[in-house]
Amino acid sequence: MAKKQPIITLLTDFGLQDHFVGTMKGVIASINPEALVIDITHDVVPHDIFQAAFLIKSTYQYFPPSTIHVVVVDPGVGTNRRALIVSSERGYFIAPDNGVLSYIYADEGIGEVREITADHYFLKPRTGTFDGRDVFGPVAAWMSKGVGLSSLGEPIEDYKKYDLPKPEPVGQGAMRCKILYIDRFGNLVSNLTQAHFEELLDASEKRRFAFQVGEHTIGKISSSYTEGNDNEIIAIFGSTGFLEFSANKGNAFKLTGIGAGKDFFVKVA
Amino acid sequence: MAKKQPIITLLTDFGLQDHFVGTMKGVIASINPEALVIDITHDVVPHDIFQAAFLIKSTYQYFPPSTIHVVVVDPGVGTNRRALIVSSERGYFIAPDNGVLSYIYADEGIGEVREITADHYFLKPRTGTFDGRDVFGPVAAWMSKGVGLSSLGEPIEDYKKYDLPKPEPVGQGAMRCKILYIDRFGNLVSNLTQAHFEELLDASEKRRFAFQVGEHTIGKISSSYTEGNDNEIIAIFGSTGFLEFSANKGNAFKLTGIGAGKDFFVKVA
Amino acid sequence: MAKKQPIITLLTDFGLQDHFVGTMKGVIASINPEALVIDITHDVVPHDIFQAAFLIKSTYQYFPPSTIHVVVVDPGVGTNRRALIVSSERGYFIAPDNGVLSYIYADEGIGEVREITADHYFLKPRTGTFDGRDVFGPVAAWMSKGVGLSSLGEPIEDYKKYDLPKPEPVGQGAMRCKILYIDRFGNLVSNLTQAHFEELLDASEKRRFAFQVGEHTIGKISSSYTEGNDNEIIAIFGSTGFLEFSANKGNAFKLTGIGAGKDFFVKVA
Repeated sequence: MAKKQPIITLLTDFGLQDHFVGTMKGVIASINPEALVIDITHDVVPHDIFQAAFLIKSTYQYFPPSTIHVVVVDPGVGTNRRALIVSSERGYFIAPDNGVLSYIYADEGIGEVREITADHYFLKPRTGTFDGRDVFGPVAAWMSKGVGLSSLGEPIEDYKKYDLPKPEPVGQGAMRCKILYIDRFGNLVSNLTQAHFEELLDASEKRRFAFQVGEHTIGKISSSYTEGNDNEIIAIFGSTGFLEFSANKGNAFKLTGIGAGKDFFVKVA
Repeated sequence: MAKKQPIITLLTDFGLQDHFVGTMKGVIASINPEALVIDITHDVVPHDIFQAAFLIKSTYQYFPPSTIHVVVVDPGVGTNRRALIVSSERGYFIAPDNGVLSYIYADEGIGEVREITADHYFLKPRTGTFDGRDVFGPVAAWMSKGVGLSSLGEPIEDYKKYDLPKPEPVGQGAMRCKILYIDRFGNLVSNLTQAHFEELLDASEKRRFAFQVGEHTIGKISSSYTEGNDNEIIAIFGSTGFLEFSANKGNAFKLTGIGAGKDFFVKVA
Repeated sequence: MAKKQPIITLLTDFGLQDHFVGTMKGVIASINPEALVIDITHDVVPHDIFQAAFLIKSTYQYFPPSTIHVVVVDPGVGTNRRALIVSSERGYFIAPDNGVLSYIYADEGIGEVREITADHYFLKPRTGTFDGRDVFGPVAAWMSKGVGLSSLGEPIEDYKKYDLPKPEPVGQGAMRCKILYIDRFGNLVSNLTQAHFEELLDASEKRRFAFQVGEHTIGKISSSYTEGNDNEIIAIFGSTGFLEFSANKGNAFKLTGIGAGKDFFVKVA
């Protein structure tokens, strides 16, 4: 049987202006030139663990389940924070132990979380300022050549995990929700899933609802970004399954001034 | 005979800061990990169909003729705009039916333009906000595995096509031309081809000419970007075969303030 | 024996917004679709030869020694500046003869420097404005298919080479050093190596030292970017072996206002 081509994805805050990403790929290609390396993004806001957590959640399920996802947003590089390898039914994840995989822990039947301690797989000398090159990249490359999880380190239970923001009831028929992410088009991606919203509606007699986003009140769900008048804020369930606020031919982020981490409200009557 | 490695190119306005491009590549790799995926650019100004049209025109002829070019600048995503597959002697093109392939229709002996209707090749569920992931990416991947055009949908004739801006005579020996594109170096790329310009000169007795670009008058053709004094605007036939205005050690766009879509004039005496 | 997959890296100032990089890759894939093409960066400041020189130095040693590195920062394109192919124990380098390989000449036992004159390997017509597409890309692709150095042109000795900035003594126990590069995190990467610094300390009785960087005085070497109070400037030996100035949760470049090319001082007592 032909061996399947191994896939490694990279998601970092390294940017594309320096040599960092290219150097990581050089290390990987030196170990396993057969690996197919795919960039998710390298433009995470420096040190923004929450943004990276949202991005890896949004993409991993579109890759084959044997894919090795490397997530390096790592403000603690050079300290004693641990390096992790996580297995799940839908992929492998290599990252620092700083909560950046919190959505993965929540989404999937996790197989194991192991601390990576097998430093003979690391690049020498390990400088302590670039673990993407010295630790995460080479470990991913060795895994893509068949090195097994049990060779990398022991299972742990006390890995770092953020409480993920969930919609919260505030009085009768009302929920406080959060904006999780702003994309390049200025769409505000929230934490309200379609399933959760349907549940709310089903519990209501009138099935009427309104979203309150800053000054804007939205009373319907659109089915295309092209709905609404110019610069009108619309609500739409986006490609990640979450409610988004958007603007036809406009940028909802600029129009509302509402950024990641901010609240909005849904009322059902 | 060894099967040739299939090539898929991507040209979008998705940017690189989100997961969108990585996710498209995940979908493609899930269907055909053997495909070589090459980014043209993802930094098209959001929804700028004309810019994308110019960019795909500038690049496709440098790829093998079996290449599958995917162009996703798609303000109409989620509406009933059609998805197209276009065959030509110099490549295949997958794009929304919004005119983004207008230069391709003009350049090449088009084989066929088909509407993609074979939705069993789409990702399910198709969310209506991300057809790069749900439609264009998977169709390209299936084509790269050998799915034929006739399996994808029926030929159509009424696909959308822009009138491409051509130089126009304005009085005797004068033409009004247009700037089509500004590149990262600030070069102003126009719609005047070298062939067209030679024709103009041949029709003149004196073979003298001047370009009028805003306040700037240029009376010669340079052969290198290094000609001219610092910040002087020069005229040069660029790598795409069109006349460009440029500035030695400077940025012609910043110096002239003349952007894409603006007119300039050529006078021949 | 299975032939090893050839690797070509690209380091340019072409940016990612135009079609330039994609077009280069199309040319390479047309000649050798088996080559693995890896981007180092394309965001070098336009025409900044020194920045590109630093970046190629920082990355090449992390690639297999058979790798072909293409460096195109080329303000002299279209003039009679030469195109070079350089062999070394740690890789091949293709670049214009403008000093962009100065660190390579200094770092490595150079095998040969040859002028590339074999224009039957170039793309025709060569327009004179885009040698990345017409010269450097195709030559790299042909090399990756096995075309030998001696087929490309004759050895030369008078290639262009910059004097690299080295720390200089200024009075007793003091050195003037330089900032070479600012990375995306705002770290100031200097030209003082760890080896050189240790030498200075060894020559001192008290082994006390201070770095003077603008208004900031730093008296210790940190071992992680997380040391220091918020926005305090710290000194650390970085991943390229050079001293860097950094700021915990801050941007040292913004805090100090000190950019590439600026001096700082080290005093040992």
